[in-house]
Amino acid sequence: MNSDEAYQVFVKQQEDRGIDIDAVKEKLKSFVIETPSWGYGDAGTRFKVFQYEGSPRNIYEKLEDAAQVQKHTGICPKVALHIPWDHVDDYSELKRYSEGLGLEIGAINPNLFQDEDYKYGSLTHNSESIRKKAIEHLLECVDIAKQLGSSEVSLWLADGSNYPGQSNIRARKKWLQSSLEKVYQHLNNDMRLLIEYKHFEPSFYHTDLADWGMAFQLSQNLGEKAEVLVDLGHHPQGVNVEQIVAYLLDEKKLGGFHFNNRKYADDDLMAGSINPYELFLILYQIVDSYFDDDEGVRHTAKHISYMIDQCHYLESKTRAMLQSVINIQVQYAKALLVDVDRVHHYQRNNDILGAEYEVRRHLR
Amino acid sequence: MNSDEAYQVFVKQQEDRGIDIDAVKEKLKSFVIETPSWGYGDAGTRFKVFQYEGSPRNIYEKLEDAAQVQKHTGICPKVALHIPWDHVDDYSELKRYSEGLGLEIGAINPNLFQDEDYKYGSLTHNSESIRKKAIEHLLECVDIAKQLGSSEVSLWLADGSNYPGQSNIRARKKWLQSSLEKVYQHLNNDMRLLIEYKHFEPSFYHTDLADWGMAFQLSQNLGEKAEVLVDLGHHPQGVNVEQIVAYLLDEKKLGGFHFNNRKYADDDLMAGSINPYELFLILYQIVDSYFDDDEGVRHTAKHISYMIDQCHYLESKTRAMLQSVINIQVQYAKALLVDVDRVHHYQRNNDILGAEYEVRRHLR
Amino acid sequence: MNSDEAYQVFVKQQEDRGIDIDAVKEKLKSFVIETPSWGYGDAGTRFKVFQYEGSPRNIYEKLEDAAQVQKHTGICPKVALHIPWDHVDDYSELKRYSEGLGLEIGAINPNLFQDEDYKYGSLTHNSESIRKKAIEHLLECVDIAKQLGSSEVSLWLADGSNYPGQSNIRARKKWLQSSLEKVYQHLNNDMRLLIEYKHFEPSFYHTDLADWGMAFQLSQNLGEKAEVLVDLGHHPQGVNVEQIVAYLLDEKKLGGFHFNNRKYADDDLMAGSINPYELFLILYQIVDSYFDDDEGVRHTAKHISYMIDQCHYLESKTRAMLQSVINIQVQYAKALLVDVDRVHHYQRNNDILGAEYEVRRHLR
Amino acid sequence: MNSDEAYQVFVKQQEDRGIDIDAVKEKLKSFVIETPSWGYGDAGTRFKVFQYEGSPRNIYEKLEDAAQVQKHTGICPKVALHIPWDHVDDYSELKRYSEGLGLEIGAINPNLFQDEDYKYGSLTHNSESIRKKAIEHLLECVDIAKQLGSSEVSLWLADGSNYPGQSNIRARKKWLQSSLEKVYQHLNNDMRLLIEYKHFEPSFYHTDLADWGMAFQLSQNLGEKAEVLVDLGHHPQGVNVEQIVAYLLDEKKLGGFHFNNRKYADDDLMAGSINPYELFLILYQIVDSYFDDDEGVRHTAKHISYMIDQCHYLESKTRAMLQSVINIQVQYAKALLVDVDRVHHYQRNNDILGAEYEVRRHLR
Repeated sequence: MNSDEAYQVFVKQQEDRGIDIDAVKEKLKSFVIETPSWGYGDAGTRFKVFQYEGSPRNIYEKLEDAAQVQKHTGICPKVALHIPWDHVDDYSELKRYSEGLGLEIGAINPNLFQDEDYKYGSLTHNSESIRKKAIEHLLECVDIAKQLGSSEVSLWLADGSNYPGQSNIRARKKWLQSSLEKVYQHLNNDMRLLIEYKHFEPSFYHTDLADWGMAFQLSQNLGEKAEVLVDLGHHPQGVNVEQIVAYLLDEKKLGGFHFNNRKYADDDLMAGSINPYELFLILYQIVDSYFDDDEGVRHTAKHISYMIDQCHYLESKTRAMLQSVINIQVQYAKALLVDVDRVHHYQRNNDILGAEYEVRRHLR
Repeated sequence: MNSDEAYQVFVKQQEDRGIDIDAVKEKLKSFVIETPSWGYGDAGTRFKVFQYEGSPRNIYEKLEDAAQVQKHTGICPKVALHIPWDHVDDYSELKRYSEGLGLEIGAINPNLFQDEDYKYGSLTHNSESIRKKAIEHLLECVDIAKQLGSSEVSLWLADGSNYPGQSNIRARKKWLQSSLEKVYQHLNNDMRLLIEYKHFEPSFYHTDLADWGMAFQLSQNLGEKAEVLVDLGHHPQGVNVEQIVAYLLDEKKLGGFHFNNRKYADDDLMAGSINPYELFLILYQIVDSYFDDDEGVRHTAKHISYMIDQCHYLESKTRAMLQSVINIQVQYAKALLVDVDRVHHYQRNNDILGAEYEVRRHLR
Repeated sequence: MNSDEAYQVFVKQQEDRGIDIDAVKEKLKSFVIETPSWGYGDAGTRFKVFQYEGSPRNIYEKLEDAAQVQKHTGICPKVALHIPWDHVDDYSELKRYSEGLGLEIGAINPNLFQDEDYKYGSLTHNSESIRKKAIEHLLECVDIAKQLGSSEVSLWLADGSNYPGQSNIRARKKWLQSSLEKVYQHLNNDMRLLIEYKHFEPSFYHTDLADWGMAFQLSQNLGEKAEVLVDLGHHPQGVNVEQIVAYLLDEKKLGGFHFNNRKYADDDLMAGSINPYELFLILYQIVDSYFDDDEGVRHTAKHISYMIDQCHYLESKTRAMLQSVINIQVQYAKALLVDVDRVHHYQRNNDILGAEYEVRRHLR
Repeated sequence: MNSDEAYQVFVKQQEDRGIDIDAVKEKLKSFVIETPSWGYGDAGTRFKVFQYEGSPRNIYEKLEDAAQVQKHTGICPKVALHIPWDHVDDYSELKRYSEGLGLEIGAINPNLFQDEDYKYGSLTHNSESIRKKAIEHLLECVDIAKQLGSSEVSLWLADGSNYPGQSNIRARKKWLQSSLEKVYQHLNNDMRLLIEYKHFEPSFYHTDLADWGMAFQLSQNLGEKAEVLVDLGHHPQGVNVEQIVAYLLDEKKLGGFHFNNRKYADDDLMAGSINPYELFLILYQIVDSYFDDDEGVRHTAKHISYMIDQCHYLESKTRAMLQSVINIQVQYAKALLVDVDRVHHYQRNNDILGAEYEVRRHLR
């Protein structure tokens, strides 16, 4: 049987449920997933980095791989950069090059963890000169974003400590805020700073931005151009990520995602490969918010940056990226197929089994 | 050898380290631990509640047990009540009775989890009338506090859901805030509302107040009479509780503790019995904040309510309470014996091993 | 569109993939799920047991509810009993009654956790007389099984301790084994003892049968009539249950399952409601073993007892049971639809992405 | 006051408790901790390896650092090697060199994770030739042990998979056993193979030796020269490691430890730095087994290999090693100071609070 025929059956089934398939298709088409330049290069664990034949050697070759992903999916026109890994002398040339490939540059990701100076912290270091160096790197990233026409700087901060007593936690909290205030002021009005949090690693006692609450509070203090970025692998076991997403949506502070999956810690496996239902439920919280009474919530939901951040250290990179993109797209499609009105109906009536079933009945 | 002699040696050792023993003793003497009325009655797990001979049958008998703990420790003059478990017709009589035992009434703890009406939520229920009922119970608790001369109402909210789709998470978030605003307005100016959070149980999919970030943000929105209460058993595995304590101190929003210990979930074992070093590190964060430049932080640190909340279901209650009180006091004493200046010195010099050792060198 | 039409399309798709739909249907039809009598009664958490109108009051009424589930599913002819909750004076009458409803009695589940005598242990208690009492209860359960025509006694042992030092762990290990040896000898040759393990709860420091390794080793020592029972909610976070299942299959020691789902601890939610993909992957390990070269492995896989053990404390019981049964059946159907040969082909070629995709390509 | 005086007071206190201080001192003196050659070199996380000035460049320089640790502690005469990192052409020269420094060579640790060939497994690889290569590396390590007068080969196996479906778990289990049988046969009668297990990392879906049960069963199948090695950072959160230690002692299969500490995953922090009480409780299980009725258990307890395996990536290496050694020694001393008879007395009487307190009363 050809797949067109099966698709027609599927469409009929959905229409019978009262789903507006055209509306779903429209939303799916406007769903953009940004891929990361570093997802195309060699990667590994602390025990081993495996080398691949034909691994891209620089940002130009990585963009070529990204262009392949865009070619096959049509929803990955944006590529996130990592500075200094993707540093080039001429950013306007890089911009032209990416445009030539049908790509645009997405979020600029600073690196505050690989310089020897950052051994004891960067934006939270007790030395003013090292904090200054870290701030300047961020300002440089803001400038690069401006040059490349990107509106986002995405901050993952590895700062933390390994032992009780090692660091003055309250002092570092203050330094972090004052450091970021300087960066914030350098943003254009149409730009935003995405603030990521992470439960642990590479710090093993405390991490300065350890959870959504810390990132959220910081973004509140900075202002409306600062928002929170949720990386799906950065929570303690058992944490309900859907609820955090709903919370941030309601507060209009959800800026973006780093998609990946994990079974244990920050395993950085392909999105949707370990617990696809969790990915669906996260996306369903977003779909549900499309119908919020508050225009601000709807606006926030529509301006989320969806980004992949994975570490394919065994599997072939470009194919893994494709598979991840498709996994996310499939789960988003499934979330769009939820009959939100009916779920709300069951919720209002405290029909637990009705609501639970309605959310996933079409996933069978 | 008599223990006086050993104590003199100990004092000499501490003085040789430059510790001001009199200052430590003064702080120890002013350290008050509140015990909970419900900690003296029968308790259990979902599988079994074991009955004890001589278990107190009402709040009067529970107060008598609490008076025993105060008699032996001298630092437990306050008893937390749970309403309606400790409901009496005449609260002024109860006040006199407790005063006659040398006790005063501490935090009033409402119960929003045992009424059949709260099956699907209380302050977050989608029915306005049930929310109203829950709010009125809280207002009643505020009134009881006023009658008993207590300045604290301590809210643990069991509200949540068991399945994806069951509840509208964003709607409940709004209901929770508007419900508590009504309660907040009913507080006298010298009262405070302590807001507890909990990772899970009895809700197994989402809990409306699941982590410190949610309780903190809520207390921010309510105003300065609302503060966060940290129960040591209410976090996912691995979460750095010391950091949360430091964070809340810095934000001047740390209102109190529920002490207990756990190895797995909210096991409610005796404080300090499973991981005493973690208890020490938490108390050390508080001691460290006594020296903060910010008067507000120091003020916050000095007004923390230290409360025990345990569930002794196998061991004898009063003895277990005594042992817990002593465990906490011992760890607090150890925290007071840290040479904070020297720790700061090592921190400034990024001497990790020096700082790590300095924090615990006297624990040997 | 009618569902027959959609089903025909589905069948065609599967046949195009080379799947033998008749073989799948046959396996599905012979897949039996046992429901537990206690799953039809009121349940709760340590905080509250909610009462339902029309809750069954005894084993006869529970069997009537179970008969409803069997009527609607056709794959639930067996009901597990819990002694003494389901104790009756005349077991032959109970047997007739269940047969009249089209049911048979499944595993007999002893209760070693609700008698006051078992406060410090049952089969592992340091008192010989209490161990003897516990053994006699198990022998009684074996006798009841014989009377009811059941071939299985399913042991969940709550024994453990709450504090370091409380118990002599090595002594208890020996008592456990010698206790069970007496029970083992009382089994008929066509009976088996299923040994369950649990990470924690109601014991909060150590549990005598805490993991699969302890249950497995015990079943090895007892003999071939002892096998391991895997409850899906009884592992630490992150544990790969699929691997344990594969391990026990390979050792020919996998006796049965208690199906349920959890997000946090032993939440006892409906099977497949939180992480359906994990349930699929577990069942896929079983399907994969149908093709093992070793006849003993295949035999083990075909004689697994599939049982539900849940605690529906908010949702309506019979409906929740139905929904769970269907969830399990659906995931089993999906596991049967895996093209095992193709997966093996990709595995042999170390094509990670091919294998990963092949396992779940039809789940889209 | 001088420390001699304080020590005399301490001794008097212990004697008053009935502790035989001379017996404790004797046990302490015979307690040997092996340090790992790789603990003296540069280390890091997947994000960064920090370089230290003066880092040892080869095994000879590492031995010099180890000699410093032995000089200061007197209980670290043994050094574990890692092959090929510590490969030399002339092992008899290496033996002489270490003897000249007052050291002897401890366990030989093979490396089955850094060769490109082991990307999909080593002893469990589906290619016979790669399994053969891995086996030959182990045989080489056995030979090196023989040449160096070491009686132990310590196997940590990184083999596993990253995705569902990637690997045939049952087939790998069989390959693992048959691979190790060949290695086992090559051991002299006075040698032993220590088998380590690990919850996860670098494999993120399944690890072939994931828990103590798998390592134990394998060591049972191999024979009495195979024993289990417990690394303190290799368990899921919450697992009771003391119980596993007690279990392995009772089965006479506890061969050794890799000491380190962690808060999150396999953080490889200094032993005793995060949860010193857990370390104490583990060592207490060993001390308790010194009094076992079974001579085999006592023999096992006396022949445990105590090894450090840490990854000091921020702190200075030799100092960190010293601090770790002292932490372990201190906790062992504390375990030796437990009045085991009194603990047993409380256990027999089910006096939970008495037993719990007796275990740790002298830790105050």
